[in-house]
Amino acid sequence: MRRLIVELGQRSYPIVIGQDLLSQTGELRTALSYSAIPRVVVVSNEVVAPLYLGALQESLSSVGADSTAVILNDGEQFKTWESLNIIHDAMLAARCDRGTTIIALGGGVVGDLAGFAAATYQRGVAFIQVPTTLLSQVDSSVGGKTGVNHPRGKNMIGAFWQPKLVLADTAVLQSLSAREFSSGLAEVIKYGLIRDLPFFEWLEQNLDALMQRDSDTLAYAIERSCINKADVVAADELETAKDGGRALLNLGHTFGHAIETGIGYGQWLHGEAVAAGTMMSAVLSRRLGWIGARELERIRAVYQRAGLPVIAPKMGAVRYLELMSHDKKVINGRLRLVLLRQIGDAVTFSDAEPSDLTNAIDASCEH
Amino acid sequence: MRRLIVELGQRSYPIVIGQDLLSQTGELRTALSYSAIPRVVVVSNEVVAPLYLGALQESLSSVGADSTAVILNDGEQFKTWESLNIIHDAMLAARCDRGTTIIALGGGVVGDLAGFAAATYQRGVAFIQVPTTLLSQVDSSVGGKTGVNHPRGKNMIGAFWQPKLVLADTAVLQSLSAREFSSGLAEVIKYGLIRDLPFFEWLEQNLDALMQRDSDTLAYAIERSCINKADVVAADELETAKDGGRALLNLGHTFGHAIETGIGYGQWLHGEAVAAGTMMSAVLSRRLGWIGARELERIRAVYQRAGLPVIAPKMGAVRYLELMSHDKKVINGRLRLVLLRQIGDAVTFSDAEPSDLTNAIDASCEH
Repeated sequence: MRRLIVELGQRSYPIVIGQDLLSQTGELRTALSYSAIPRVVVVSNEVVAPLYLGALQESLSSVGADSTAVILNDGEQFKTWESLNIIHDAMLAARCDRGTTIIALGGGVVGDLAGFAAATYQRGVAFIQVPTTLLSQVDSSVGGKTGVNHPRGKNMIGAFWQPKLVLADTAVLQSLSAREFSSGLAEVIKYGLIRDLPFFEWLEQNLDALMQRDSDTLAYAIERSCINKADVVAADELETAKDGGRALLNLGHTFGHAIETGIGYGQWLHGEAVAAGTMMSAVLSRRLGWIGARELERIRAVYQRAGLPVIAPKMGAVRYLELMSHDKKVINGRLRLVLLRQIGDAVTFSDAEPSDLTNAIDASCEH
Repeated sequence: MRRLIVELGQRSYPIVIGQDLLSQTGELRTALSYSAIPRVVVVSNEVVAPLYLGALQESLSSVGADSTAVILNDGEQFKTWESLNIIHDAMLAARCDRGTTIIALGGGVVGDLAGFAAATYQRGVAFIQVPTTLLSQVDSSVGGKTGVNHPRGKNMIGAFWQPKLVLADTAVLQSLSAREFSSGLAEVIKYGLIRDLPFFEWLEQNLDALMQRDSDTLAYAIERSCINKADVVAADELETAKDGGRALLNLGHTFGHAIETGIGYGQWLHGEAVAAGTMMSAVLSRRLGWIGARELERIRAVYQRAGLPVIAPKMGAVRYLELMSHDKKVINGRLRLVLLRQIGDAVTFSDAEPSDLTNAIDASCEH
């Protein structure tokens, strides 16, 4: 079992990584020790609940918690106000008070919704993440970002709300589809690209074992990803750093969100859009003369071996730019991109020439 | 002009109190100095906007801000998800980014909605309060509580979000109806009752000048109220103190919320419900042998002179208790009330006997 602490002062919390954590009670017992009979609401979805809700509720029961479940529809298209209201309505109907803890059991959508529900229910209740996808274990469960989508853009409405505990059980990753597993690898690879060249090299060497979902290899990759993310988040919790900081985690995301919004939520998985979006950033970085042709190929090769798309859907550069102009990464009207100085060294950059941007988009899309 | 600082570490902010502040630009200039052309969204309602939006937008224009307005319906019944979405939709349509500042121009409903919109738009943007009622100047503009109502209870969904600045212009209070003005006095009186006997005595002596809305008397009462509230909030920002702390500000509010929910939002003004609710708390405090008969009469006399109801609507004790069981002041299933040891000394109390509670409710209601 691996255990690391995300250092955020009074809001610090542990991430625990290991096999079969769902049926271990020690960490849950500690996190719920504020009350003799802690009240817990487990938020999950129709796909995950049949697989893992029973085991989690059994563990909760054995630490004395009184738990009820709220089961949402599965999919990014349900990351909406309506789903948030389903959680709030269920909690009010059950008369949950401020001493309630919300547990998210599921992927990023469940985590974002349950976290935003926790941030806003009676102005804030405790929150625990039990991420069940690789993507959410390495990314959305660390950093405190919660929220819902809006027809005009992803994650436009939300809050920062830190969990008390994250339990990343590697056993649950065995049931993921190949596509979902690969989607998670996109974020794992990202940490190598933005700040950890040795980890990128480790990935080049261990990608086959990772693709076979070897437990120890997985646990190491998750831990290293979480450490990288935790470091970045600890230094810039609310994404207020002017340059670099938390914004670097958005490598590939501004392009990626444009892909997701442009072709409709739920068509591409998040990691797939991020992979293709990162390739756009890499192509632009190459065009600016920052990374070399060989590095561009190394990045492309890793994504391809991980089963991820390296070519973005054709929507036209004008449409891409329009979609990106809605992005939260626009600060006072300027589009701020994350680009690569080299592998393991990302920077924020607001001075891309429109022609370079247009050319990089066109060169990275289907023809 | 009176100026005080709410001390909350990095989230500290000034409250400025005085005549004709809407047309003064100094404080706005400072608060918006983060950008050469700050983007501002003014949230107001159909009643307040015709009176004061022009003056505020003129001041904003003269400090170089680019402002747009979102005008909501007036009334507590519009403190809903739907109104929140109107603000978010307008901001997204106008492509507001994270550098945007939201200004609330209106009473508590506008402030709570605009503040919650600021807390959740792109996970948080800057917020300025320009409260235009006495109630919001002395109460809801201090403390960072934001949120919306739910059919099952008031303020059930929300967030803590501190403003960067509060501008309390005493001139705008001249246009309030007698009922609204009195509603604000209920919260002013509350500060005397919970922690400031000299202020309660000052109120007994100066209530006539206050009822005539004398400028200097008003400014003093607002400042003293804000200092009291700021002291309490600074010591317990997130309402986590087990006993006392911020909870003391809820004197009369648990009964008051039951009144508002029970007879339907918008029938009684908030301060009216708080006045009648505080009388219920005072009657219960008397029954417990804490305050004397003379003190109970002094409290009743001040409320009556302030034009406030001292008798609650008849709904039956059972209905009151049911409504109160939904309150956020229920912690792990126990109803926590704020009661009076004496005038100027409130305490939280979770051990009221059901029979005392029932008798106090029945004794305080219409017959």
